[in-house]
Amino acid sequence: MNLIRRIEAGRGEFLLFALTPPRRSTEPEQVREIAEVTAARLRPLGLDGLILYDIADEAERNPDERPFPFMPTLDPADYLADHLTAWPTPVIVYRAVGKYAPEELRTWLTGQDPERVMTVLVGAASSTASSRMSLADAQALRQDANPALRLGGVAIPERHSRREDEHLRLLAKQEAGCRFFVTQVVYDLNAAKNFVSDYHYECRARGMSPVPLVFTFSVCGSMKTLAFLRWLGVDVPRWIENELRHADDPLEASYQQALTTATELIAYCRTLGVPFGINVESVSIRRVEIEASVRLAEALRAQLRRKC
Amino acid sequence: MNLIRRIEAGRGEFLLFALTPPRRSTEPEQVREIAEVTAARLRPLGLDGLILYDIADEAERNPDERPFPFMPTLDPADYLADHLTAWPTPVIVYRAVGKYAPEELRTWLTGQDPERVMTVLVGAASSTASSRMSLADAQALRQDANPALRLGGVAIPERHSRREDEHLRLLAKQEAGCRFFVTQVVYDLNAAKNFVSDYHYECRARGMSPVPLVFTFSVCGSMKTLAFLRWLGVDVPRWIENELRHADDPLEASYQQALTTATELIAYCRTLGVPFGINVESVSIRRVEIEASVRLAEALRAQLRRKC
Repeated sequence: MNLIRRIEAGRGEFLLFALTPPRRSTEPEQVREIAEVTAARLRPLGLDGLILYDIADEAERNPDERPFPFMPTLDPADYLADHLTAWPTPVIVYRAVGKYAPEELRTWLTGQDPERVMTVLVGAASSTASSRMSLADAQALRQDANPALRLGGVAIPERHSRREDEHLRLLAKQEAGCRFFVTQVVYDLNAAKNFVSDYHYECRARGMSPVPLVFTFSVCGSMKTLAFLRWLGVDVPRWIENELRHADDPLEASYQQALTTATELIAYCRTLGVPFGINVESVSIRRVEIEASVRLAEALRAQLRRKC
Repeated sequence: MNLIRRIEAGRGEFLLFALTPPRRSTEPEQVREIAEVTAARLRPLGLDGLILYDIADEAERNPDERPFPFMPTLDPADYLADHLTAWPTPVIVYRAVGKYAPEELRTWLTGQDPERVMTVLVGAASSTASSRMSLADAQALRQDANPALRLGGVAIPERHSRREDEHLRLLAKQEAGCRFFVTQVVYDLNAAKNFVSDYHYECRARGMSPVPLVFTFSVCGSMKTLAFLRWLGVDVPRWIENELRHADDPLEASYQQALTTATELIAYCRTLGVPFGINVESVSIRRVEIEASVRLAEALRAQLRRKC
């Protein structure tokens, strides 16, 4: 059953891999090469789908210095159209809606094949960020321009730790058409469980079916990558930080931690009966970290019950 | 190797059970009966030691209404002396130091057999609580009155979550003579791991040996017991609360959770090489909850490598 049918049916147990498009400054020839190398690296994983992120400069969200400088990246829609047409699975294209004029987004939405593409619409990173369009307007635009195009949203367990209302935000987004949610990178298992649990029981109380929650995992091979994760808003528990700081091989330690966290979260979701997907990304562009992420996806694929 | 030798050697993998003495209003005849029933219930567990709590009215610590009314209990030293002389293992007697005049505490300390008794000195529950003696004074008194009597202290992972300095407090207490630490009931595995991790790496940085950390576990059979745990300052994660609230059999669900949390924490301590002990208590005086606590101790005993 392909990813789109699976999400339509509210079923989980699928595996995604998320990519950030190459920097905008990359030579076109090199972009093609990157796309080819990436596709060749990911094809053996037997993924159910690919995610393409839409990177916005989130400097307004966080006053601290960004550990890695912001580099504008290619538009994920262009990257897909120009270089990944041969990719065999459905692709989930993120749209940071604040970056686009309504007509620009409408044109893109209208042109998408709902049997091949899904989209995740992402609101502005902070309420003060200058934004050309609100999330609600973008959601309404999708409904109007291409209602068959499946819509997803972002879910942030860390926000649930602070405000305890992320499950209610998800249910509001479901009412606005979302059929799945994707988290940012998960390091805090307890926060993720609190979030899943509240979502599960709220769905039950309302007599609604939960939609698939896609949990994102990644490896972290250095203290600089860890600092970047924190800058992005990821809660990394102290004991995990300590372990990475003192490990002989932080990347391997991080790989093991991510595997353990994902395994426990998978078991927890199954216990509750909440459909889930797994998404793996590489936060860093270092080759060893990318390769470890691919290994992580491979190991997690083995845990999924894809016949469900 | 008995508990006292084990603690002296800085070795873990031991099992304790903690009791709250009967209410002071209990008829003497009934106190004897309770002691006999309790000893008979615990003897088959093959415990390494018993803990006797010293209950203070902690109303000053928490302005919220206490879910169960405060009932003064028998002095744990009296309970031991009068009713548990036949108990076969060492006993750890708590002393809420603020309750005692210095001479009163000195007399007790002097009279204890260091081959049979250890003590945990507990400071006032809040800095504003009226107190007849400070923790530092009581520690100095122990050193003076009976230096052979092994001393322990309390450890509070929840405090570490808020202030991130519980590991430093422990090291200061070690310098004041503490040879082991006992936590309050652990429900937040992540907080416990953060605390153990920081303690481990700080010991390493200072070239000091870690002393055994005794983690306390309990079952929680009702929302009222859960409210009481929270009143006592225990962080109970939302997902655990949800699970207990919705379980057909909350006591059984809680038993499974405690077992899982303890198992994971045991594995984590072993990975770090931090010596640990396990303590089981029954927070509630309901018979079914006491029996489930005994079952929990039995299940955890099977996991300990007591030959270490």
